[in-house]
Parts: sequence; C-alpha cells; structure tokens
Amino acid sequence: MAAAPVWSVDPRTGKPREQVAVEATAEEVDREVRRAHATRPALADRTARAALLRTAADLLDESGAYLIEAADAETALGPVRLTGELARTTAQLRAFAEVVDEGSFLDVRIDHADGDRTPPWPDLRRWKVPLGVVAVYSASNFPFAFSVPGGDTASALAAGCPVVVKAHPDHPATSEICAATLRRAAAQVGLPEDVVVLVHGFEAGVDLVRHPLVAGAGFTGSVRGGRALFDAAAARPTPIPFHGELGSLNPVVITGAAAAERAEQLGAGLAGSMTLGEGQFCTKPGFVLVPAGDAGDSLLKSLTTAVSETEPGVMLDHRMRDAFVAGVRERAELPDVDAPITPGAGGEHTVSAGYLTVPARRLAADGPHDLLLEECFGPVTVVARYDSDAEIGAVLARLPGNLTATLHLADGEAEDADSGAARLLAELTPLAGRVLVNGWPTGVAVAPAQQHGGPYPASTSTSTSVGATAIERWLRPVTYQSTPAALLPPELRDDNPAGLPRRVDGRAEHATAP
Amino acid sequence: MAAAPVWSVDPRTGKPREQVAVEATAEEVDREVRRAHATRPALADRTARAALLRTAADLLDESGAYLIEAADAETALGPVRLTGELARTTAQLRAFAEVVDEGSFLDVRIDHADGDRTPPWPDLRRWKVPLGVVAVYSASNFPFAFSVPGGDTASALAAGCPVVVKAHPDHPATSEICAATLRRAAAQVGLPEDVVVLVHGFEAGVDLVRHPLVAGAGFTGSVRGGRALFDAAAARPTPIPFHGELGSLNPVVITGAAAAERAEQLGAGLAGSMTLGEGQFCTKPGFVLVPAGDAGDSLLKSLTTAVSETEPGVMLDHRMRDAFVAGVRERAELPDVDAPITPGAGGEHTVSAGYLTVPARRLAADGPHDLLLEECFGPVTVVARYDSDAEIGAVLARLPGNLTATLHLADGEAEDADSGAARLLAELTPLAGRVLVNGWPTGVAVAPAQQHGGPYPASTSTSTSVGATAIERWLRPVTYQSTPAALLPPELRDDNPAGLPRRVDGRAEHATAP
Repeated sequence: MAAAPVWSVDPRTGKPREQVAVEATAEEVDREVRRAHATRPALADRTARAALLRTAADLLDESGAYLIEAADAETALGPVRLTGELARTTAQLRAFAEVVDEGSFLDVRIDHADGDRTPPWPDLRRWKVPLGVVAVYSASNFPFAFSVPGGDTASALAAGCPVVVKAHPDHPATSEICAATLRRAAAQVGLPEDVVVLVHGFEAGVDLVRHPLVAGAGFTGSVRGGRALFDAAAARPTPIPFHGELGSLNPVVITGAAAAERAEQLGAGLAGSMTLGEGQFCTKPGFVLVPAGDAGDSLLKSLTTAVSETEPGVMLDHRMRDAFVAGVRERAELPDVDAPITPGAGGEHTVSAGYLTVPARRLAADGPHDLLLEECFGPVTVVARYDSDAEIGAVLARLPGNLTATLHLADGEAEDADSGAARLLAELTPLAGRVLVNGWPTGVAVAPAQQHGGPYPASTSTSTSVGATAIERWLRPVTYQSTPAALLPPELRDDNPAGLPRRVDGRAEHATAP
Repeated sequence: MAAAPVWSVDPRTGKPREQVAVEATAEEVDREVRRAHATRPALADRTARAALLRTAADLLDESGAYLIEAADAETALGPVRLTGELARTTAQLRAFAEVVDEGSFLDVRIDHADGDRTPPWPDLRRWKVPLGVVAVYSASNFPFAFSVPGGDTASALAAGCPVVVKAHPDHPATSEICAATLRRAAAQVGLPEDVVVLVHGFEAGVDLVRHPLVAGAGFTGSVRGGRALFDAAAARPTPIPFHGELGSLNPVVITGAAAAERAEQLGAGLAGSMTLGEGQFCTKPGFVLVPAGDAGDSLLKSLTTAVSETEPGVMLDHRMRDAFVAGVRERAELPDVDAPITPGAGGEHTVSAGYLTVPARRLAADGPHDLLLEECFGPVTVVARYDSDAEIGAVLARLPGNLTATLHLADGEAEDADSGAARLLAELTPLAGRVLVNGWPTGVAVAPAQQHGGPYPASTSTSTSVGATAIERWLRPVTYQSTPAALLPPELRDDNPAGLPRRVDGRAEHATAP
C-alpha cells in the first residue's frame, strides 16, 4: 500500500499547494518515538536544555519572514497576526530557558535525618525528574504558539523530555520547517537532533498516544478529537497524563450598570474580541450575558455596527468553514433565537461574522437550547438577554468548564458591597481558569502567573498550557532516602553547588546563584 | 429490597462481631455527596480548616485506647502497631494544619501589569482553589493512616475540599468511630459536621466516583479495584483526577560486595521488613535481587533462620488469606522456583511467612515467570539470584512501576566510581517514587520531602499520598486578570495581609507572618 500523501492546502482557494510529507505508519511512529526516547540522557543536562531553548528562539526569529510566509500560505491568518504569534512563541521559548536556569521547578525539598522523631525520620531529598517522551498534538489555529515550537514543546524540553510532535494537517509545511529549525538548534548546542521529531497523520496520532514509551501528552484542539485521545491515554495498560485543551465558551457577564455606563464601548470591544482571527481563538467570547432593556439594546446596536464593518474572512480550512456555517444555521433555527446580523458563508471560501440573541430564561433548564452552550468555532457569539441577577446565576450554573470567564462592571461597582459584583465573581470563578474584570479574554500573556486551562472541557487536567507552571505537567517527584552524597545529583547535595531555591527542613531557602 | 447489612468481622475467627451499618443506596450516596458539597463555603476559611485538623488530631488522641481496641478487633493488627499508626495519623493531621497556616500550597504568583511588553501584560494574580468534593477510598491495611482520618482526608480538608469516605469492609466499626470523631471536631471549631461523611458498600463506592458533584478521588488498594475506579473516573462525561495507589513490588538490589560484607544482617533485615504487619504493607520488599554464590547463600541462610522464627499470623480478612495461600502456591509451582521456607496457610485462620527463590535469568524475558513480578499481598518475598550486573539490569528493565526501590551497597561502594553503584541507582530511579540506599522500604516518614507514589501501577498519577505536597492533588489554579483589589481574596492583594510566601513579578518573597 502506498503511503498516504500529506498536502499543504491554501485555505483561500481550497487548492492543494504542494505535497509536504507522507503519513507515518505504525512502524514509523515506533521508530520516531524510539529515536526521541534515546535522547533522554543528553536532555538531562539543564544547561544544554536552556541553551537549546534560546538557540531555537534565535533561529526561529532569524527565519521569521520565511516562516510567516509559509504559515500564511497554509492558514490565511495574515502576516500581522503571524508576526505577533511568532514573537510570542520565541519569547515563550526564552521564558522557559529562564525557568530552567532558575530551577524552582525542580521543587527540591530536603529533610535531614531526625532521630528525635517517633519513629525517627531518615534523610529524605526530593526533586522532580522528567517523565520521558512527550507527545505534542499541534493546534490548527496557532501554527507557532500551540504547534511544533509552541508551549507544549517548550515546556516539555524545559522539563527534560524529548518531544514527538503530531503535525496539524492545516499547516504541515510550516510544521516541517519549524521542526527542522528546532532540530538544527539541538545540533548547534551539541544535543541530538531527535530531541524533537515530527509525524504526520491521524492514525499516527492515535499510535503515538498508545506507544509504550510515550509518557505524557499535550493537546490543543476540539472536544471530539481531544476526548478520543484522552480516552486512549486512560485506556492504556499503563495510563499516562493527558493534558488536553478541548473547548471553551468563555462566558462574559455585563452588569446593568456597566451597560448603562459604556454600551457603545462594550459593543465595539465585544465585536473586536469575537471576530479576532476570524473567531478562531480558543478564548473567543462565545457567550455573553447582556441585560434586557435599553442599555443592553444600545450595546447590541454598537455590536451590530462594529460587526457589520468587518470584512468576510478565510477560516483555517474548508471543513471548519462548513462546520461553522452549519453550526450557526442549526443554532439560528432554535425558537426565540434571533440573528441581528446573520453569521455564515461570506463567499465560496470565506465566512462573515455575526451574532445570535436568545432570552436567558431559555437556557435555565435542559432543552434544545443547550446547543447554544457549546462552542461554535468561528466569528459568532451568542448574546443571552437577562432580566435579573437570579437569571444570570441560573444560566452560569449550567455552563460547562471554560478557559476564561469575564465580568464587566461599572465604575465603583467593585467597591460597592451592594452591587452584587462580589457574588458574580464568586459565580464565575468555579467556571474557569482565568477570570477577568473589564477586559476581553482573547490575548493570553505568556507570563509566570498565567493560567490557560480550566474545568473540563477547557482542560482534561488541572494544569496550564501557558506560563511558567506549564513545565509541571512533564515531571514527577522522586525522593532519595539515606542516599550517600556521592550518589546524589548535585541539586540535592547539602552544599547546593547550583545555588537552587530549595526547602530545607521545612524552611524556604532562596536561590543563591546569580 | 432490604438494605444490605455491613458487619464487622473478627479476622482471628472469621466470625461476625456486630452489624455496624447498611450499604448506601445510590440515593443515599447522592444525599451524602450533596451534604458534603454544601459545606464548601464554610471550608473556604483557612483558619477554620487548620483548627479542624488540630482538633481532629486531639480528639483522636483522646480516644486512642478505644480506637485501637476497635481497630484491633477488626484487623488483628495488634495494639503496638495500631498505637504507632494512630500516632502517625494524628501527627499527619497536625502537619497538614501547619501546611494550611504556612500557605505556600496556594502557590500565589503575581505579575503586575507591564505596559513595556509587546503586547502589554495585564495584571495577573494566580493562586489555587479547592477542587470540590473529594471521594476517599479507605485501605484495608491502615485503618487509621490510609482510611477515614488518613492522609487523603487530611490533605483534602487542608485544601478546602469536603470529603466523602468510602469505608473499607475490613474495618467498618473503626471507620464509623473515626468519622464521628472528625465530625465532632468540625462541630467544635464551628464548621458543619458534613465536611466529612461516610458511606459503606462496594456499589456505593462506584456510585461515588461517578457522582457529578465529586471532583476528585483518592484511593489506596488493589490494582484490580483501583483500576476499575480509575476507569470509571476517566469515563465520566466530565473526567476527574483519580489519585490511586494500586500496587508495588518494591524491588531491592543487593550488590555482591554488600552481601559479602553483611550477609547475616541483610538476611535478618529483609525478614523483618517483609514479615512486618504480616507482609501487608504496600512498601513490603516483594522482590529481591541477591547475588548467586556463597555470599548470597549466606544471606539466604540468615533469611531462612529469621523467617523460621516468626509466628504464624492473622491477615486482615479471610479472602486475603485465601488469596495469599493460592498466590504463593501458583508461584511456587513455576519451573525453577524453590521455597526454602514455604509460605502459606499457618492454621485455619492464620498464615505463615516464607520466601521463594528463582534464577534471575528466568525473568529476563516474557513468560509464565512474569507472575513473580506481580505483588503478592502477605508475608512472602521472591528472591531472584543473579550472576552478573547485566542480569540485574535486564530484570529491572522488565519491572512495572513501584512505590520504592532499594539498593544495598557495601562500605565505600557509593564513593567508588568503578563499583557500578551509580549505574544501579540510575536503573532504579525510573522504577519508583522513593529510592533508598542501605535501608528497608517499610516505614514511610510523614515528612515534607516524602514521596509515596510512583510510576503505574504504584500510582495512577504523578502525585504523592504522604507528605506536604499531597495537598496539591485537590487544588486547581485560577488567575485573576485586571481585577480590582476590592474583589480579590486577601491572599492576592498587594499588601499581603496574611504574610504569605508568594512569587511577585518573577521573584520569590518569603513569608512574613510568624
């Protein structure tokens, strides 16, 4: 049987551009995993890992123009967005190099022997070691930041784990160039190139999560695809951690006072956030609670104006475009659902933005309107009009988990104990990993305190895929008991030659290294 | 249908002692979970949680004699062991109170807004919040330390999660007393009693892990039972974290030099560790690599002598006793397996300790001898005799994951680069969560740096069930973005009124509270 070809496709025309690769067979997946697995001893060197991450960032920046052109041809995301995404991706690689150098991710804890305890404590020294080979499933909508050189790869390499990336079929050529760049970076710092390998193909992705030498997986994509892989990971003879980001509605609550204060600004802000990148952000505000009445009407008027001014755009591929058109149509046909601006097919290859409205009371109990509480990928949002704070609470209680939840307040509401703001924040917090006040959820800063993850289906775990703590996903603790100093890694010795931050006998010790 | 009775049984006679309770129906499980769920707001108070843990410890200590008598009648573990176990359990509750007070488990990270970044960073403040109701599955072999008042319950309460405990059928009366004590402690500190509730019954345990309001589970028990619950947790519409400790062989490697140096001491030490508590410790050394030849022969001679001197004992229940007798028989019938002292039935209600030997080369490839690489609960260990270091490596590479792995070295071997000690330690580290040198794995200090957990099937996750970091299992991170100080929890405000240790703008800040 001939190997299945992998084509790069132009989403602006739907036409194939070039054959990039072939889909990996089970044997090829096995070979690539073993190649990656063999690099673990080399990756144990933290200095080399930090150098790899920085060199990879430098090489990606150097090839910026070429990479952006390649990604734009496959994704239609446009050079402005892709330039920003690449900058964010290389910044993320450098941020993880700093995490590696700083060393607190090793979570070193030392308890010296204590004979006064009953029973006596032996000498215990704990740190974290890499899990092993990590499978990374690339996302369609971020060809850099959540794909080959993205956060999963960066955090896994930072942890000391080799990576096998499953390319996304929407950008196979970009994936090949990025993988080659990462491999070149490895060679430049004296690491084996196979610290990163790339495979293509749906079946290859399934083979990968089942491979006995794969010790963990990171995924960004759909609920359907992610859940299938999560289930496969859990069903293995030896289950492995599966950190998947599957889907999110990103609810927004706009108080009556906020709508009364700045209806126009809120309508325009919502339009900008929900249409950004053709509504293909995982943090797109897909569900907005807006008060019934005049202030809410004004907000929608502003929203209509702003959305009307957006041009039809190209989605990442034609399958997504068709799913968007069908998904919007199905939602619009529900009773009491209106479409002040009908989202849908813009042209043969494009889509046009729009939004739907529904009375919030329609969503307070099980029924066909539950479809409106499922993510619809693309430039559409659902506006639920509420009559009372109780209605807000009833709807929020029915929402699945989310990456983000947003609250818009009027000036002074935060400080006013009678405004209900504290209660609304308390209702939003259980729904999401990131809670925003007076902002829009699109745009995820790559900062140490970031949390990009939330209750299922936002994530299949309690972890984050962005920010410093994303590295924790690829580590496991090991404690050495009564182990002679000569056999301990330097990080666990009393003299702490690397100057790491540690907890010794229950007390935090700061880093002493520069 | 009448409710199924739950009987307390005397393992020394196999006879029922008293009916303690009835098995919970699905409706009753639902009611108990909802009761526990309703206590979440009260448990959000960290001061109250710390007080609950300390008061629970005090009340358990006060009832010590009564509790130990109750537990001994159901488990036959004996007052000496149970006295130690209760002391360890109350120390663990107090240790988690300190964890709550100290506050580093909240992992507070603050990144102030930074307009100089591209794109600008908003203000981000991250901490960890409780998951929700935690289901705790009690262990047979630790009626206190891994049951109702054990580490899972203590760490979940410390995290702010209410607990629904599924009692183990081997000690239902002890479970009832302990649960009542914990509920009394809650009332004394002004918390609702339902922060801890108790259910009995196998089906109740299954209903529990499937309940929509249960947000996480902790389990200590068998591979079979634990895997079934793990699978149920993963198959839920909304999967939940399942932290299970399922089984462990706890391999021990004794170098030729160590055997030559102290054969007698090692044989006696091994006998003590493998027969401790009738071999019913999850950290029992169940597989020991001993050199072929004279030194190893001397070690076994000492082992034989010491094991011969142990009295027959009573296991936790008759089902376990029968499984032990059958398991030993099946292993002993394998080709090339000898039983210098045949373990097995000691009397109608007892078992006698023993051990099996096998040439290590029998275990270097797939075959019927793989049975020897599965845990056999009870006072038996398998001694594999090796001819070379290569044989050790070949066998270790075939072992499943473990809680512990142990290396016995002769004096000076640790410091001798040619001894092979470093290589052996490197081969043992991937196998376990705790690696010991020159000790025995039974006995798990409740210390901050402890790691009780390891690669599957030792654990179904990368967490620990003992030690300060066990609390991490029951938390998830939430980041507040651009949130007015008036709406932030005090822990996330700039003035840090609780004096918590935090990371602010990437730098660690020590605790300032007393």
